[in-house]
Amino acid sequence: MKFATVNNNTLDGGLLLVSDNRQQAIDVSHIAPNLWAALQNWTQVEGDLQRLYQQLNTGALSDTMAFDAAICRAPMPRSAQWLDASAFLNHARLMEQAFNTPAIPDFDTIPVVYQGASDNFLGPCEDVPLPSEADGIDFEGEFGVIVDDVPMGVSAQAAADHIRLIVQINDWSLRHFGPREMQTGFGFLLAKPSSSFAPLAVTPDELGDAWTQGRVKLDLCVDWNGDVFGRPNGQEMNYSFPELIAHCARTRRLSAGTIIGSGTVSNRSREAGSACIAERRVLEKIELGEIQTSFMRFGDRVRMEARTVNGDPGPFGVIDQRVVCSE
Amino acid sequence: MKFATVNNNTLDGGLLLVSDNRQQAIDVSHIAPNLWAALQNWTQVEGDLQRLYQQLNTGALSDTMAFDAAICRAPMPRSAQWLDASAFLNHARLMEQAFNTPAIPDFDTIPVVYQGASDNFLGPCEDVPLPSEADGIDFEGEFGVIVDDVPMGVSAQAAADHIRLIVQINDWSLRHFGPREMQTGFGFLLAKPSSSFAPLAVTPDELGDAWTQGRVKLDLCVDWNGDVFGRPNGQEMNYSFPELIAHCARTRRLSAGTIIGSGTVSNRSREAGSACIAERRVLEKIELGEIQTSFMRFGDRVRMEARTVNGDPGPFGVIDQRVVCSE
Repeated sequence: MKFATVNNNTLDGGLLLVSDNRQQAIDVSHIAPNLWAALQNWTQVEGDLQRLYQQLNTGALSDTMAFDAAICRAPMPRSAQWLDASAFLNHARLMEQAFNTPAIPDFDTIPVVYQGASDNFLGPCEDVPLPSEADGIDFEGEFGVIVDDVPMGVSAQAAADHIRLIVQINDWSLRHFGPREMQTGFGFLLAKPSSSFAPLAVTPDELGDAWTQGRVKLDLCVDWNGDVFGRPNGQEMNYSFPELIAHCARTRRLSAGTIIGSGTVSNRSREAGSACIAERRVLEKIELGEIQTSFMRFGDRVRMEARTVNGDPGPFGVIDQRVVCSE
Repeated sequence: MKFATVNNNTLDGGLLLVSDNRQQAIDVSHIAPNLWAALQNWTQVEGDLQRLYQQLNTGALSDTMAFDAAICRAPMPRSAQWLDASAFLNHARLMEQAFNTPAIPDFDTIPVVYQGASDNFLGPCEDVPLPSEADGIDFEGEFGVIVDDVPMGVSAQAAADHIRLIVQINDWSLRHFGPREMQTGFGFLLAKPSSSFAPLAVTPDELGDAWTQGRVKLDLCVDWNGDVFGRPNGQEMNYSFPELIAHCARTRRLSAGTIIGSGTVSNRSREAGSACIAERRVLEKIELGEIQTSFMRFGDRVRMEARTVNGDPGPFGVIDQRVVCSE
């Protein structure tokens, strides 16, 4: 199933079920008023939603509407928890060089995760208001999963069954604040403003073979101001999503609607390019001896879309948005 | 005004308005179904609530109930954002010694704040399920504020007007995980399970002179298994709550219901004792040459109550809870 959220003047928005070909949608607020509520009652609502989804895909429903991804909000405009890992160690090792920070202990065996702002997620085409170009404005393309209620102490094996939806995320970052906030040991705060989401949150079966070993085997195609920037594939993730969930739930339960991010998608192959500017900059430093690429300016656009290795569009739809001055 | 939340089989609970003497309460769900909703519509509901509060205090209402703090949930059982500072530098400097971590840069001029789990706050007398005594189970007594919608870039002066409620918190900590999670630079995750809250969230006017310069001038009296542990006063906070809010909102807006914590209350005077075990342990190490106090065991209780310098009870009520094994 594919879900999207539209504005209905509530904080959580209104829930749409979107057809397989993304052409049609139907309001399903009579089953669950919003996606958060659907996740809280997943086992009760799943059957009804699946029946509607089949009817929607076969054209058997009359009260449908044309689906317009550009007006969607984030699938969950807010959540009680957003936990973002750094599960592509290729990226993380490069960022250690970029920030000149000490090597993270046990990095190969214990995931690192920060908790981010979850009260104000942005839609795929919303402008992104930020206070200053001097803060080092950067995008970060990544994948994520949304879980139902996960008990404390869950195993990675059991965690896999709690993954209800998969999403595509732009984890906006302000690089100027990163090194100091890492040095404090308290983690990112100013460095991580609200993240943006692609319009569609989809059940794992929608990915077919691209959902494998708890990873999203799709290219994340990132364009910056119309130019190809990178297209790293999600399968190189060093920890699977179930492993990340088990790590996060070791000392807390995760309530339904908790979102777990992969961290910036990053591949060892240089040909794939990067999913964030900071990574390109450190590669320039390493390979060319000097940084050539600047961070974003107000008015810049970034576009992100997952695609199969054949170049077909992935199931999440497109993030395409512009950075603007908040003042 | 004083607010409490009771279980009504919803995630956010049902809202009670509690009398000044904490003897009576009235269901105000017809004005706002829960405290989160009240904060989202504060200017619309404040007048009606204040009128009811006056009538409640003068005995003019008939449909009241006896108030039972022991059955309360956290005033906000969940929130979209929980940002916890370390604003008592006396504590923070001691913790640097305890964890043997490097000095935090610009600590005297820039607040440090981590983002914690906000999906599952515990009530004042609920058992606290944790996985292992080996994790270094510790309490942390602190104060916090709850804001309405705060715009990005708010000044400290303007931030003061966004403080709608003041709360008392036990920020549960698992010390075993702290040093490594600080070394990663990503901040606390396993080290910070769900926090607990005293039963009453109160408007600033309820504190009278004890709300001064954006700080809570009350002793936070902490007892561990019936023995006095510490009674540090909140006025020594090195950053005021409005200053903390302005810091947090520099690159994000804070949605209504965001909770900002002070970090462990801590005084330079040794006579005040501590509000967490880790601080006592490092003081023992410094003053006696060896650590004498162990962390908590399953079955241990901690009690926390704010009091005036005259020993009168503060407005928040009592946290009194037991640590239990989650398995």
